[in-house]
Amino acid sequence: MVTLLTDFGLSDYFVPAVKGVILTVSPGTQIIDITHEVAAQDVHSAAFTLGACYRDFPQKTVHFAVVDPGVGSSRRPIVVEARGHFFVGPDNGIFSFVYAWETSVRVFHVTNDQYFRHPVSPTFHGRDVFAPVAAHVARGVKPEQIGEQIEDYVRFEIPRPHSIEAQGVIKGRILHIDHFGNCITNFTGADLGPDAIRPSTKFYFGGREIRQFGSHFAEAADRDDLFAYPGSAGFWEIALWSGSAAKFINARRGDEIVLANPQSAITHE
Amino acid sequence: MVTLLTDFGLSDYFVPAVKGVILTVSPGTQIIDITHEVAAQDVHSAAFTLGACYRDFPQKTVHFAVVDPGVGSSRRPIVVEARGHFFVGPDNGIFSFVYAWETSVRVFHVTNDQYFRHPVSPTFHGRDVFAPVAAHVARGVKPEQIGEQIEDYVRFEIPRPHSIEAQGVIKGRILHIDHFGNCITNFTGADLGPDAIRPSTKFYFGGREIRQFGSHFAEAADRDDLFAYPGSAGFWEIALWSGSAAKFINARRGDEIVLANPQSAITHE
Amino acid sequence: MVTLLTDFGLSDYFVPAVKGVILTVSPGTQIIDITHEVAAQDVHSAAFTLGACYRDFPQKTVHFAVVDPGVGSSRRPIVVEARGHFFVGPDNGIFSFVYAWETSVRVFHVTNDQYFRHPVSPTFHGRDVFAPVAAHVARGVKPEQIGEQIEDYVRFEIPRPHSIEAQGVIKGRILHIDHFGNCITNFTGADLGPDAIRPSTKFYFGGREIRQFGSHFAEAADRDDLFAYPGSAGFWEIALWSGSAAKFINARRGDEIVLANPQSAITHE
Repeated sequence: MVTLLTDFGLSDYFVPAVKGVILTVSPGTQIIDITHEVAAQDVHSAAFTLGACYRDFPQKTVHFAVVDPGVGSSRRPIVVEARGHFFVGPDNGIFSFVYAWETSVRVFHVTNDQYFRHPVSPTFHGRDVFAPVAAHVARGVKPEQIGEQIEDYVRFEIPRPHSIEAQGVIKGRILHIDHFGNCITNFTGADLGPDAIRPSTKFYFGGREIRQFGSHFAEAADRDDLFAYPGSAGFWEIALWSGSAAKFINARRGDEIVLANPQSAITHE
Repeated sequence: MVTLLTDFGLSDYFVPAVKGVILTVSPGTQIIDITHEVAAQDVHSAAFTLGACYRDFPQKTVHFAVVDPGVGSSRRPIVVEARGHFFVGPDNGIFSFVYAWETSVRVFHVTNDQYFRHPVSPTFHGRDVFAPVAAHVARGVKPEQIGEQIEDYVRFEIPRPHSIEAQGVIKGRILHIDHFGNCITNFTGADLGPDAIRPSTKFYFGGREIRQFGSHFAEAADRDDLFAYPGSAGFWEIALWSGSAAKFINARRGDEIVLANPQSAITHE
Repeated sequence: MVTLLTDFGLSDYFVPAVKGVILTVSPGTQIIDITHEVAAQDVHSAAFTLGACYRDFPQKTVHFAVVDPGVGSSRRPIVVEARGHFFVGPDNGIFSFVYAWETSVRVFHVTNDQYFRHPVSPTFHGRDVFAPVAAHVARGVKPEQIGEQIEDYVRFEIPRPHSIEAQGVIKGRILHIDHFGNCITNFTGADLGPDAIRPSTKFYFGGREIRQFGSHFAEAADRDDLFAYPGSAGFWEIALWSGSAAKFINARRGDEIVLANPQSAITHE
């Protein structure tokens, strides 16, 4: 099976060309779209979306993830092996959540152009490099046959909440905003379990205090005010029952969230 | 085969997470998207869209339909068996067209959590309850193994045109507006066959008289005026060749349509 | 395998109804979406998009392409055989790129209604005519069994750049604008190879001179100015790194591009 994650959109020939190449190399392969609506060139958003669902797929799934502002330049194409899955895409940090979450990761620089579609268009490596490589991996070609293992691959750090003891606060950030306008923070369930909260603990976001907490939307008594809950991607999220929390508070990825007067500091391992 | 109908959109990890879970439980299952662009929480629209196409799928198809404003609350998850098809989703009326059109329907309250993905996120039953249950049903698990049959399931009535004899009119309603802006009424072909129309019969919608009737768009002589025709979902529709009828007339679901001076009243069986 | 290309959008029951019919006639067939977001009734855009990717699919693929403003009227349904692929759709020019690029093309007028879904809705031949015909072709039914071969099928000419020797210019046109706003011209790599350009050659589009050329986006030094490169569909394209070239210059399909003072005229074979 091959999954696809791109910023190609669904209007053009880009996605079907990728699928046609995969199915020519590897007939009968099942292809599942993760999304093709990543904002153009938004590698961080692509990385989050892949991170939030790759573990739901079976062993041996090949994840094709191509959001690639540097297409045609010297950035490297890579194949990653982790958790019994494979990942194919540009070496620009798009697999950073995989690197963060998996203990054993092997990364290979794709160099063996016998696995490419020729001629290679300098503007469409998705079709001409990544698609045939993904299809060959799906057929059982080993990453070792496609290129050399490397250690200096590109990754960006996933920000973690950090305690500022002098102020008695823990500061977190917005990792992602989904299409409902829900704001996914970087506080995990472990960070913000019952032990972290005491009656005087307060949660601030965008200059507002969040007053509603719970486990699901139907618990939000005031549907026009912010509501926080442990989300399905493993992080606390902030939502608005009646609409988009992101619009309500003009939030952007990277915005700060402050937990004031928590029970205890967050200690990073 | 499993079909999917949700309001999850195509930008986030929600739909691929559902697909990954289904394919982990039931490898090789073919998955077909009905749509993921139902307006957020619009159970009526989801019910119409499912109703308009489920009968085109083969026997034993499992239809996963999750538009679920009550996720995490006490609304029940259900499995429905009808027409040799299966339906999996929340008990909120989303299967109302199935209930209306099928003579033999069995509804089961899903309670056997050995078929769930654990832990169950209170905000994402699509991934953790409905997806694995749908996959198990696709593998051949019987609804009886998943929960108890119930009779008090939630359904909303599909409105039917009704005659107001004192006024000499039949009043109908808009059931659905599609993405072209075509307005699907609740007059069926049987309601509005040749026997219902006489020369003096008039059809009013949104304060306007509809003057053009036919069987297909190319018959609309005036492309900037409304046109009525028997639509492909079994209902009369009102369209505008040159654009959106719904925008042209500011129509909404539930709006009234009036047939004045018809040949005969509609008698409901 | 069957590919699908329509202007049906992804919100309604149209696409899944087509898929359900195909899978009822031909169980297990793999279905790949090309796109369903062609602008309503834009046959030219559909023709370009199909032309840009059909050759990436394997032999025997059946391409269902239905953008059909004349649905229900007397326009003919056709099956085309070319390059070992099949094409099913209305006879309105939607296969013009196939006709232009393939040397051996056979076109059949679909008349044998035993291959239709009955009753045939006058407004949804996609579901009732083209889908079952495509599925039967995918199962191995020969075009000869479905209708008579014809020669007078509808095609539009793909415009070619032409030299105006008196002015010392070559004039081309915009064939297509993609969802990034990139403008695909009708200059091929052969038209505009290194031999066509001399130092004094200039390239004008929308009243502006294009000053940046290269093979991939990362070469555009000025990200806020137009950039031309040989695109992945085989034509030169004009893009803007920082946004939509089409919006930047208010471009539309059919707009003229002028190559002034070229090395040599284009001679059409």
